[in-house]
Amino acid sequence: MPEFREIGEKIRKKAMDMGMIHPQKDHTPSLEPGKIGYGFGYPITGLEKFLGYFDKQFNIAYFPSISYLTDFSVTYSACMYSSEPGSDTVCLDGKTDENYDRRSLKAINYLKNLYAIPGSLHFYLKREKRYGNAKGLGESASVAAAAARSVISTIFKEEWTDDIPFTSRLARLVSGSGTRSVAGSVSMWISYPWITESQSYAFPLDVNTERMYFCTYPLQADFPTENAHDIARSSPGYMGWVKEKFDRTLQYLETGYSLWDMAERSQKDMYSMHSLLMYSGSMVLNSSSLRLIEKLKKFREKNGGNIVYTADTGPSLSVISNDRKLLSQFTDANPGSISGKIPDQSEVKIPASFKRESEKYLSEVAGK
Amino acid sequence: MPEFREIGEKIRKKAMDMGMIHPQKDHTPSLEPGKIGYGFGYPITGLEKFLGYFDKQFNIAYFPSISYLTDFSVTYSACMYSSEPGSDTVCLDGKTDENYDRRSLKAINYLKNLYAIPGSLHFYLKREKRYGNAKGLGESASVAAAAARSVISTIFKEEWTDDIPFTSRLARLVSGSGTRSVAGSVSMWISYPWITESQSYAFPLDVNTERMYFCTYPLQADFPTENAHDIARSSPGYMGWVKEKFDRTLQYLETGYSLWDMAERSQKDMYSMHSLLMYSGSMVLNSSSLRLIEKLKKFREKNGGNIVYTADTGPSLSVISNDRKLLSQFTDANPGSISGKIPDQSEVKIPASFKRESEKYLSEVAGK
Repeated sequence: MPEFREIGEKIRKKAMDMGMIHPQKDHTPSLEPGKIGYGFGYPITGLEKFLGYFDKQFNIAYFPSISYLTDFSVTYSACMYSSEPGSDTVCLDGKTDENYDRRSLKAINYLKNLYAIPGSLHFYLKREKRYGNAKGLGESASVAAAAARSVISTIFKEEWTDDIPFTSRLARLVSGSGTRSVAGSVSMWISYPWITESQSYAFPLDVNTERMYFCTYPLQADFPTENAHDIARSSPGYMGWVKEKFDRTLQYLETGYSLWDMAERSQKDMYSMHSLLMYSGSMVLNSSSLRLIEKLKKFREKNGGNIVYTADTGPSLSVISNDRKLLSQFTDANPGSISGKIPDQSEVKIPASFKRESEKYLSEVAGK
Repeated sequence: MPEFREIGEKIRKKAMDMGMIHPQKDHTPSLEPGKIGYGFGYPITGLEKFLGYFDKQFNIAYFPSISYLTDFSVTYSACMYSSEPGSDTVCLDGKTDENYDRRSLKAINYLKNLYAIPGSLHFYLKREKRYGNAKGLGESASVAAAAARSVISTIFKEEWTDDIPFTSRLARLVSGSGTRSVAGSVSMWISYPWITESQSYAFPLDVNTERMYFCTYPLQADFPTENAHDIARSSPGYMGWVKEKFDRTLQYLETGYSLWDMAERSQKDMYSMHSLLMYSGSMVLNSSSLRLIEKLKKFREKNGGNIVYTADTGPSLSVISNDRKLLSQFTDANPGSISGKIPDQSEVKIPASFKRESEKYLSEVAGK
């Protein structure tokens, strides 16, 4: 493990020297009880996938990871500050979800501690999905990014959400992949054992996304994989995977980042990551994903490899091509996909309807 | 690795002390040019599964493994000795198969060396399958067992095929799982790094097979897994799997062998073994296997876990129950299975038709 810290530090130093990683700015909170701030977040799909926390308190990963932003869903978040201490609340999609609650409260407490915030934070989050129910479409990243942006708008200033290192770091406290959602487009999250907490955030990679065509087949998990991070971590192959991750990260820094190469890697990395979960019996792909993969393998062979598939921690299958027509040809023949694009985060507006409903909800919370 | 040798030796000693492993007898060849000997072999299904050779020359596995004999197919083998040196031949299912040829010739050469046999050996083997084309049904074990029995009948005496350690050892030279096919019913193959070659063979386990009901769904591999042994071995989780194997083997020796416990283990072990292959992209199960597994999971939950599923290095799915009715209930609702039983190897007769066709073939080979 100490060797991973060393390689990690080498990678971080190199990326800073190359001007890829910028330092975080200092921000001072200005607290206004009753003030509501807003934020949004998009989901991500893993290229160099991530699973397994080195530090579960601060969501520090064992290794750096890379993903691309998608528009398969969007999360909006409203955050209100109240002067009453110890009464933080989180409402996601109209209900309090124990899982998000636990994660969020941990993040809230750390943040309050860090900036000596005496009162409470109240969150109202809503996911808008372009599909029904599915697993593996990076929603937790979108939730984390939205929460981070909204809390910054509330206790700091809305403009400070433009400070990617800062916002990305705060998103990490809710969910690791939230870092990359904030940094957006195609980005890398720097993380390794014993990294200084404040230095673990994501930064955009300078890659050409023009010929990146993708879609996803949203699929529901029949048998949910609980605690995927812990399951992967306890697999005997985990540390070998970590080693490969560091090797490739170093290699990317030497040779540069090619989006298509990383897309091809993401197909292989799906198998490696799923294999770690499968070891103890957690099968991520289901028969529907496999049926699609069987078709994709044949289609890929026929078309010179210019189409790849990948999946994160769920059966939903993403298909990527550098040829728009090729992708359409496949999706036309195999219905059920939704087409994706990398959203431009500078253009996002919080819908007025969301503002209205969150204000209503948060004023009720405050009135209690 | 040296620790595996140590644990392996401890296991072997303990099993000998417990009277489970018997020593091999000494046998002297009596060579008769033109003599034809016969043998048969049944396939196996892995309980404590095996993958990855420590020594590819002598087919020494990294760890002990356990399997049960099935009657999903049977292989018959005829072997003829000819005085002409260096002209060994192998014919499987009417043709020379490069894969079996390579394995068989290696075994033939070692055997000839061991017993100073000057002439050549000619094999004519035929598989009779109760299914069309399928992968993962232990056919290589049946081929290895049949070849070993026939060569013993030819260059030693037919009765000496009753010497399980001897026959099992020779079968190993063709294919590792052939050891357990020879020892039959439910048996364990003792193997570990640096074991003396002549001591690595299988022996039957004293377990009650009365309430062992099973079937298989023969499924064809869409994308064949070549070199599964090497792929598994190079997976970062392989050594962790080996360690678990030794831990469990020691535990079995302490607590005794329960067939049902091992059947349940075989379901978990399928995932572990497949995960090692999946790491680098080799998916053993296909969408048909997964569809069955999804049904089996639900059926298993509904029925108190008294039904398990497993697979070896192929998509074919075996289903085991300790309740005959329960198994029928599943197979009636999900057609496509063939029911199995553990064959009684003491009752097997070589069919007269096979003897006729092999004599015809071998006399032609000798006439060349």
